[in-house]
Amino acid sequence: MANEPSGEERLIARYFRPLAKHPAALGLVDDAAALEPPPGCDLVLKTDGLIEGVHFFSDDPADAVAKKALRVNLSDLAAKGARPLGFLLALALPREIEPAWIEPFARGLGEDAEFFSFPLLGGDTDCTPGPLTISVAAIGAVPHGKMVLRSGARPGDRVVVTGTIGDSALGVQLRCDPTKADQWELGRDHLDYLEFRYLLPQPRNALSEALRAYATAAMDISDGLAGDLAKLCRASGVAADVDVWRVPLSDAARAARDKEASLVETILTGGDDYEVLATLSADDLHAFSQAAQAANVKVTEIGRIAAGEGAARFVGERGELLSFAHPSFSHF
Amino acid sequence: MANEPSGEERLIARYFRPLAKHPAALGLVDDAAALEPPPGCDLVLKTDGLIEGVHFFSDDPADAVAKKALRVNLSDLAAKGARPLGFLLALALPREIEPAWIEPFARGLGEDAEFFSFPLLGGDTDCTPGPLTISVAAIGAVPHGKMVLRSGARPGDRVVVTGTIGDSALGVQLRCDPTKADQWELGRDHLDYLEFRYLLPQPRNALSEALRAYATAAMDISDGLAGDLAKLCRASGVAADVDVWRVPLSDAARAARDKEASLVETILTGGDDYEVLATLSADDLHAFSQAAQAANVKVTEIGRIAAGEGAARFVGERGELLSFAHPSFSHF
Repeated sequence: MANEPSGEERLIARYFRPLAKHPAALGLVDDAAALEPPPGCDLVLKTDGLIEGVHFFSDDPADAVAKKALRVNLSDLAAKGARPLGFLLALALPREIEPAWIEPFARGLGEDAEFFSFPLLGGDTDCTPGPLTISVAAIGAVPHGKMVLRSGARPGDRVVVTGTIGDSALGVQLRCDPTKADQWELGRDHLDYLEFRYLLPQPRNALSEALRAYATAAMDISDGLAGDLAKLCRASGVAADVDVWRVPLSDAARAARDKEASLVETILTGGDDYEVLATLSADDLHAFSQAAQAANVKVTEIGRIAAGEGAARFVGERGELLSFAHPSFSHF
Repeated sequence: MANEPSGEERLIARYFRPLAKHPAALGLVDDAAALEPPPGCDLVLKTDGLIEGVHFFSDDPADAVAKKALRVNLSDLAAKGARPLGFLLALALPREIEPAWIEPFARGLGEDAEFFSFPLLGGDTDCTPGPLTISVAAIGAVPHGKMVLRSGARPGDRVVVTGTIGDSALGVQLRCDPTKADQWELGRDHLDYLEFRYLLPQPRNALSEALRAYATAAMDISDGLAGDLAKLCRASGVAADVDVWRVPLSDAARAARDKEASLVETILTGGDDYEVLATLSADDLHAFSQAAQAANVKVTEIGRIAAGEGAARFVGERGELLSFAHPSFSHF
């Protein structure tokens, strides 16, 4: 006879079934989810993953890791003007994984799924001899034909970003080398802020409707502002000029940069910002800013689009052109 | 300036962009895919992954690994009665990965994407310090409300399976311990056949319409017939009685089992079959068999559904009830 649920089934039933409240998830007892797409909409599909030791530290809190895994995908949906519909979760867990890790992981996942109306629809749980690996496939929806692309920027458009840039990259440096806190003369609050910004990105889903209404192009900043703006420019067949002094910095990032001027490169190229980079017509800037304010998302104009072939130029306060050793985070 | 594509962008452009011919993929140059769902359909969503050293051997040919990654997901879509729409690919590659691996991997992926009309829609490529890990998120479509569930089996229904059972589990044993070929007195052809069945599952997508028309419940067999039938029974709130002698075996599996009777447990519980297990009313058996024949898929009746609470009973030729040490493959 073959009647008892396996260890894998018990793990899913205990930790993940309680999160699968959406009817499409079928309580995670079937092979697949069955989701009725909203009428008149295109699906926006994205997959992004986190690997222990690459995208997060082994001692990062498990609930924050879960939230980050969702938020890096939510950030893409936000930039594309899409409403989240739900996600699939592929988990590769080391054999020695403890309930003390899985329990808060599932709790964090459930909290953000609830907060962002982004339900768990299905998943796959495997055992790996390697590092813990989390892969999320995100499904969102936009009215047909209305996904905000990277390729729509036009000469004359203004370049805007949400939030502040570079916090997460500085947070990672502080995690890797805590002596930098003294070197940069950061107080506890600034230190905590930068590490928090690394740990828990703030996806700008509140802005997705305004982006759909006004942006000519948009993407989320995951590999650094410099490299990602260059990608947007290449996709659009344009160039961009950014005034580095206009790039919004948090107080903490500004304090660090004031101590160590070369950190401007870390700030502009380090990545993991999960802020939105967008372009829009100058005529729409006011209406967009008002919509952003209503959504409680800070947006800052940092430059403009010019004719050209993919160059993203970053200009310093004395008019000098900055150049970067590694403009974009790249795995290879 | 930040104008040159990164190594990661070049890798994607070189190997994967040529596969992304579907307009929804946007040539893989955007953050996300934009897919218009077929009208009147539900989306069938599934994620399943392969980890080097867990789901495939390091020296398995890369094109076969790619095909297997798609086929294990296609098999789920088939069992659910769904038509494939496309997939997202999350790849975690060791830093030392060679073009000599990626090139045939991408080729295999492209061949099966073409063959099964299952286009690449988007993806994510990361570098991992661990084993090569491939995660596929599959998107399919069924007419609204028509996904074939695990939970619809009713007492009196007949239990059927496609193809032959146990080949892959025997193939894995042969890969792990080549001396078993002599022990089981297998000729070269039988040996090759079992290893091939492990290497390259044959998803039964040709049967998906017939399943939608006739099956009361269905799932694909990935964790072994015994454990998976028990899952179907638990989901349906029924029991099942299977005549072990009716379970279809390939000539190669039969030859091995004739030499070593205890292999019946491997055959029934080893998994990785990627055949379809389905239940249907006795009245529909003839029409279903004809539809299967037209689709060129072999189906075999192996037992029937009874009232009960989740027990899957396997009965031997002398009427004895078989019991298994590990009825289902489980990662935990």
